Amino acid sequence: MRALSLEKNLQYQANHPDPRPGEGECLVRVRMAGICSTDLQLVLGYMQFRGILGHEFVGVVESGSANWLGKRVVCEINCVCRHCDMCLSGLANHCRKRTVLGIAGRDGCFADLVCVPEANLHEVPDVLTDEQAVFVEPVAAAYQTLSQYPFVAKTKATVVGSGRLGLLVTQVLAETGCKLTVVGRNAAKLLLAEKRGVQSVHVDDLICRADHDVVVDCTGSPEGFDLATRLVRPRGSIVLKSTFAGERGVNLAAVVVNEISVLGSRCGSFSDAIHALVREAVEVRPMITQTVPFDQAMDAMTAASQPKHLKILLDMRK
Amino acid sequence: MRALSLEKNLQYQANHPDPRPGEGECLVRVRMAGICSTDLQLVLGYMQFRGILGHEFVGVVESGSANWLGKRVVCEINCVCRHCDMCLSGLANHCRKRTVLGIAGRDGCFADLVCVPEANLHEVPDVLTDEQAVFVEPVAAAYQTLSQYPFVAKTKATVVGSGRLGLLVTQVLAETGCKLTVVGRNAAKLLLAEKRGVQSVHVDDLICRADHDVVVDCTGSPEGFDLATRLVRPRGSIVLKSTFAGERGVNLAAVVVNEISVLGSRCGSFSDAIHALVREAVEVRPMITQTVPFDQAMDAMTAASQPKHLKILLDMRK
Repeated sequence: MRALSLEKNLQYQANHPDPRPGEGECLVRVRMAGICSTDLQLVLGYMQFRGILGHEFVGVVESGSANWLGKRVVCEINCVCRHCDMCLSGLANHCRKRTVLGIAGRDGCFADLVCVPEANLHEVPDVLTDEQAVFVEPVAAAYQTLSQYPFVAKTKATVVGSGRLGLLVTQVLAETGCKLTVVGRNAAKLLLAEKRGVQSVHVDDLICRADHDVVVDCTGSPEGFDLATRLVRPRGSIVLKSTFAGERGVNLAAVVVNEISVLGSRCGSFSDAIHALVREAVEVRPMITQTVPFDQAMDAMTAASQPKHLKILLDMRK
Repeated sequence: MRALSLEKNLQYQANHPDPRPGEGECLVRVRMAGICSTDLQLVLGYMQFRGILGHEFVGVVESGSANWLGKRVVCEINCVCRHCDMCLSGLANHCRKRTVLGIAGRDGCFADLVCVPEANLHEVPDVLTDEQAVFVEPVAAAYQTLSQYPFVAKTKATVVGSGRLGLLVTQVLAETGCKLTVVGRNAAKLLLAEKRGVQSVHVDDLICRADHDVVVDCTGSPEGFDLATRLVRPRGSIVLKSTFAGERGVNLAAVVVNEISVLGSRCGSFSDAIHALVREAVEVRPMITQTVPFDQAMDAMTAASQPKHLKILLDMRK
């Protein structure tokens, strides 16, 4: 099969061996996959991952349990043991022995075929296109923000970062009716937020008054975190959705002095995400800036790091 | 009067002009003051503070409101406006216009005389010695930890850092009955915790299993924060009591991946602290490693940065 694999370097392989599903796993033929900032960070050394990249996809079950054969599916990325203290306490996404699709200890979905635990599958409603279904994983990550902070109508909230994840988080928060602003650098991306009825501000025009109840940092940069500490009010919260490779750190003095709560936030509910896409609470199609045949995946990875791009989809059907 | 002042450098001044109390302020004759890690950080450039250092003290009111004349007092360090959004929302310690005794915009207590708002004063019960009363401010800071995390008997908690603040936080947490460990480098300091019935571990003997519900970081170093992220369980909390000068930052990747809550924590309730000292829930006398006449304050500041020392008190009566 074809695969985009990270060894010493990133490689497109035309003849990667087909994977074989283990016990409780299905083999899924990938139809489309999305490139995420985490994929770019992995290439830069984050997590020291080696193997096939990719964790956002939609596909069709090709072998495995009869219940799932032929179904169009998306897949939760944390593959868990169900027996450790985390799994038994209801925090399976933090399983001590987990592997994570295309991120830690398990090949991902930038390939024609991928093996995944049957328990991780969600059937995709017919009303969703493949292009929409690819977004279930990042929309779920955006929904996790809601489970970590009680957004209400009077909440003064800002999303920092108008990239792939930032625009999804923005749409998810907009539905809560909170007083929402999104901050970014790219006028075209900010316009997408404005079209969803969310006020946007270019970072150069921003005045930091330390008066926001909660700031969601989706920038993936120390500078974004620093900006968040200047926007949030004393005793306010920063929901941190960014991970980044490298040694550059952040200064936490403001967190102590202003008694800010920094809430790390990762994966979320696939069910919430699927429902949001079905009822069009989250509109993802304007975020797709390119869809490329899979054999152009190397170029697509390069393009995905350019500021002009939002989501780039890899089409395995081509 | 005599004063220890931070200008370009730290200076002991034998003839500093006496301060004059403003409206609503009292003039307090300082009896004893304590050197805190924050004082050492200020000398290193933290907050770009200029003026008389010091914020932990006990003294006697020499002029001002008749209600307070002659009373032995301790003093809250945040001097606030009572009119801004923070003051009006009950978060006066985060007043937008605050000055902070010996830390920001206001001369501190390393001097014979200090001016402080009358509203900030607390009378010291006779049962407390001057040596104990000096600790009210840092004990209050330790108590703030309890207001930010719900410690109960089954809570698995660790204090990282067995220094001045770490040993106070350790004693405050011990009273909750939680499963408590303190981690440090200095055997003599860890022994003080053991004498209060708290299990201690030398950092070199520590095995990080990411299984603690909450870790309180009192180290004032990026390394301490890094250790806290490895001790705390997924979805656990780090209470961050450390501020430090300089550009060295921390890596927040583990905070995101493990969805850790980082809770900045600063000043706390003086009433709680006074009551704790009165009932000897917190025993501070063994933490005093030196008491020096005030004219040796420069040497005392140097000594305070040495690992062998815990609290060094400046005695203004000598």
